[in-house]
Amino acid sequence: MAKLPTVEDVALAAGVSRQTVSNVINTPGIVKEATRERVQRAIADLGYRPHMAARRLRTQRSSTIGIHLDPYAGGISGVVLDRFVHALTERASERGMRIQLYAARSPAEEIVRMGELTEGGEIDAVVITGTFHGDPRTRWLVERGIPFVAFGRPWGDDDVAAPAHLWVDVDGAAGTRAATEHLLATAGPRIAFLGWPAGSGTGDDRERGWREAMAAAGASGRRLECEESVALARALTADLLSRPERPDGIVCASDSLAIGAHLAAAAAGIPDLPVIGFDNTPAVEAMGISSVEQLPEEVAVGVLELLMGASGRVVAPRETAAGEAHVLVEPRLVVR
Amino acid sequence: MAKLPTVEDVALAAGVSRQTVSNVINTPGIVKEATRERVQRAIADLGYRPHMAARRLRTQRSSTIGIHLDPYAGGISGVVLDRFVHALTERASERGMRIQLYAARSPAEEIVRMGELTEGGEIDAVVITGTFHGDPRTRWLVERGIPFVAFGRPWGDDDVAAPAHLWVDVDGAAGTRAATEHLLATAGPRIAFLGWPAGSGTGDDRERGWREAMAAAGASGRRLECEESVALARALTADLLSRPERPDGIVCASDSLAIGAHLAAAAAGIPDLPVIGFDNTPAVEAMGISSVEQLPEEVAVGVLELLMGASGRVVAPRETAAGEAHVLVEPRLVVR
Repeated sequence: MAKLPTVEDVALAAGVSRQTVSNVINTPGIVKEATRERVQRAIADLGYRPHMAARRLRTQRSSTIGIHLDPYAGGISGVVLDRFVHALTERASERGMRIQLYAARSPAEEIVRMGELTEGGEIDAVVITGTFHGDPRTRWLVERGIPFVAFGRPWGDDDVAAPAHLWVDVDGAAGTRAATEHLLATAGPRIAFLGWPAGSGTGDDRERGWREAMAAAGASGRRLECEESVALARALTADLLSRPERPDGIVCASDSLAIGAHLAAAAAGIPDLPVIGFDNTPAVEAMGISSVEQLPEEVAVGVLELLMGASGRVVAPRETAAGEAHVLVEPRLVVR
Repeated sequence: MAKLPTVEDVALAAGVSRQTVSNVINTPGIVKEATRERVQRAIADLGYRPHMAARRLRTQRSSTIGIHLDPYAGGISGVVLDRFVHALTERASERGMRIQLYAARSPAEEIVRMGELTEGGEIDAVVITGTFHGDPRTRWLVERGIPFVAFGRPWGDDDVAAPAHLWVDVDGAAGTRAATEHLLATAGPRIAFLGWPAGSGTGDDRERGWREAMAAAGASGRRLECEESVALARALTADLLSRPERPDGIVCASDSLAIGAHLAAAAAGIPDLPVIGFDNTPAVEAMGISSVEQLPEEVAVGVLELLMGASGRVVAPRETAAGEAHVLVEPRLVVR
């Protein structure tokens, strides 16, 4: 029997990279029309069948989506990812799809797991979470032509115009912008931002929402950098509140930071200082602290819409009806 | 081809119920020796092959355990079940097993899902959670001979001596007993209990630990009943603290109740009133409230030990090495 054509054969015949071939198969909307036609011709000429599609013909099993679960690390915000897994399970169930979990302690280990599960035909598609700049998982998935959607954008310059892969994310900047505008309107002009150290995509995005809202209002406020820690946020906020020109309110990059800020304000005798967190976790709900709600249920719906064809089974990812390759969910400010 | 013998045929031949046949297959340790031998003889004579074992011969796929995920309901304590799912995924992964999630909004719907997944050969075993008295899921699983372990005891009179099925649970009474003894030793003799309305297995078990510790110390304290609500717990505690003979401390059936009690105490000007919750969730950790930690990681280990044979694949459940059919995890008091 002749050797089956590979993605390398197609790339060679079309004069493009393996990655471009994968893009044509998985995210045709992000490939230039001329290139796409050349690759599609090479695919047809060679009779190339993407790995997953070929596998699917051999089984009648329900389509199964793999998703990685971190070791439980405690903390306030892990609940957002768990909520997403709940919602994804529910939505997938409605569509007759299955969710399979796998454990991994690092991106490298996650790649090993994804390799085992896709080669063994145990999963048909992957949802990855917690993407970061230069994420090796997305490159690996694209090269192998494995259908996947990321909860988290590629964190490159052209995320929206020409995304490297399908993704769904929450518009963090829109969330902190709404929080900042709310405090500017209700508390006063000096709104501080308590955020993570610069360099994390998610943290920088949330900082930008505050910065843009302050600039638009012609206001200015202090920006504090803080690791994700209630105790550290409490200490930094205590120091901030002991200085002259006390802030009128504080927007925070996470609920953990907001809890620290709230405890510091209460200890300083100003328990009503407005503080807004991010994630709307049960902890801030219990403490009566306002927060930005990520709406993980909407993220789950977006992920499945990008992943699935009208057939109700996983198909090689494609453009959405509107030609989009991403979904950006607008979060919701919950005022308490 | 002759019709394959069924579990009914075996029951008829041995003069026992279907459930006893299933017990012999799945939990032989809980069946009297004479009965067990009679059923095993009938199984051998008829050549009966339990459904799952026969199916397993047809596939080389990794053993897959199904577990139900509720719709996300918010609240403080859901995080315990999520921690358990994280731990189960990690431990199962180490053993080359898979975890598949399914959604269901009621026990009846969960039975439908389990039926689809086991009949389709998609899962080999089930872990059910949140068991209750008269749980229809356990009866259904036992009747069909599907390997399963419950996180949660059967809540019958003979849970430990002759359990109706394999189970792992946290010793709630031991947790509230330790909490009560700690407060009796450090705060004073008047320790109140803020618990759920009588009638829930879990809630009654936690109430018992407080009651027994108080009786052993010759102490007495008020017992308040409260739905699982921060606001309601706060109102009830505020009322309690406004009366004469204020309690020296409060043991609570959950972290939500403990947060309500703590907020009421703080509002009444006694923020240092000792309050102990149950579940050790991130919310009480952030607020500095003591709590009883369920150790879901140990529950996950117990579940897999009961479910698996030495082969590292799901086998028809059996006695553990020690002849036990259950694991009771001792929780840990975290004092803050």
